Amino acid sequence: MTYCVALRLDRGLVFAADTRTNAGVDNIATFSKMHVWGGPSTDPVAEVDAPDRVMVLMSAGNLAVTQAVVSVLDEAFGTTTENPLDLKRADTLFQAAQVVGRAIREVYSLDGEALEQRAAGFAASFILGGQVRGESPRLFQIYAEGNFIEATPDTPYLQIGEHKYGKPILDRVAHGEMRLGEAAKLLLVSFDSTLRSNLSVGMPIDLLAYEEDSFRLDRRRRLDADDDYFRRLSQDWSEALRQSFADLEELDL
Amino acid sequence: MTYCVALRLDRGLVFAADTRTNAGVDNIATFSKMHVWGGPSTDPVAEVDAPDRVMVLMSAGNLAVTQAVVSVLDEAFGTTTENPLDLKRADTLFQAAQVVGRAIREVYSLDGEALEQRAAGFAASFILGGQVRGESPRLFQIYAEGNFIEATPDTPYLQIGEHKYGKPILDRVAHGEMRLGEAAKLLLVSFDSTLRSNLSVGMPIDLLAYEEDSFRLDRRRRLDADDDYFRRLSQDWSEALRQSFADLEELDL
Repeated sequence: MTYCVALRLDRGLVFAADTRTNAGVDNIATFSKMHVWGGPSTDPVAEVDAPDRVMVLMSAGNLAVTQAVVSVLDEAFGTTTENPLDLKRADTLFQAAQVVGRAIREVYSLDGEALEQRAAGFAASFILGGQVRGESPRLFQIYAEGNFIEATPDTPYLQIGEHKYGKPILDRVAHGEMRLGEAAKLLLVSFDSTLRSNLSVGMPIDLLAYEEDSFRLDRRRRLDADDDYFRRLSQDWSEALRQSFADLEELDL
Repeated sequence: MTYCVALRLDRGLVFAADTRTNAGVDNIATFSKMHVWGGPSTDPVAEVDAPDRVMVLMSAGNLAVTQAVVSVLDEAFGTTTENPLDLKRADTLFQAAQVVGRAIREVYSLDGEALEQRAAGFAASFILGGQVRGESPRLFQIYAEGNFIEATPDTPYLQIGEHKYGKPILDRVAHGEMRLGEAAKLLLVSFDSTLRSNLSVGMPIDLLAYEEDSFRLDRRRRLDADDDYFRRLSQDWSEALRQSFADLEELDL
């Protein structure tokens, strides 16, 4: 499994993804599930100049499928010929989500049948967030079928993968007016609950905060298992929960 | 779905079960998922005198299956002839868990094939806790196959049904030395997170605290949606979580 979560805020977007992949519990490995395109100087893939857009894609599901989707998008990015899989041609983030959907269907047309004939199945889901110049930052969740939904002020967060453990705190705290650092803290608290309860979600955590209209993807950080801030957060949160619980009125049964 | 959870403590046992059943989201109803046998005067089913034992069974899964299992156990309880499905003949709670397993297999032999030919499947799981005179209180989780596991000091709680939302707080707080009222409070906090995030788990909640060696099942209470204590608990807990979250150090990204 995987856990990825993102928040759409008035001031931008915040993303967090774990990095554990597993084929059974006896075969785990670390793979980044966060991929970026655009901006002035971010990932090596941003060799193509695209300062008018930033896009962050997080993935869950079958690693072969999600890697294939990312590779298809990478190869198409900024190609000089007209290419319906080119994220650089999207005029809006809605169109970018359509491009990702198209890439998923492309991979499905190649591998879907073989996967569905076996137990594996064609499992893949994505969160796409970012900004294209001319509109505000937007956030989408894209399904294995290639269709998608968009986060709105009513429910500003989206999750893929092992979402249940970390959902209660999001339901209680998440709102659009949060500061980026505050939202990053929230995503890490949500991760903390998930990491404690589910072995298939593992450190390090990739974290990225995007500030509206900055068109930069450099507020990005990888938190390892021995990251000082995360350990302190985890301990403080545990302690606060225990204390809050102790302070609650007891039931007289 | 369903959510049932129980804790094994040094001083006894505490059980909580929701009461929602649903066949699709457009067909919900209220059914008790907590069944008791034994004790001096508890449920109507305790017409059979059995002051040397108390047993609490909570169920999740296909309602037709779980009701059939309970009915089989009800009919067999205290029968005068030798009956391998009679919980009154069990000398230990381990043997009682075997009896429940046998009842599940009995129902499976009747309905299993028809259910598995269709999409429904034979879904059922149970938590059995209680005490038989001569040993300490014990707690078991029984699977659809009829086999089971027992709660131990390492992991003193057992859950069936929609267990993920309410697990993080159990992992952090549950321990065997808790008072019964404290443990009841914990189960309700665990329920609160589940109720907020999953529509298929619904009020009222059936709650039962059993004190070791009392052989009484009368510390039992049903909490409705407008229960004063539960509303206060839910509000106080939300407020405490928000405050604890606000007090956490922010990440400087």
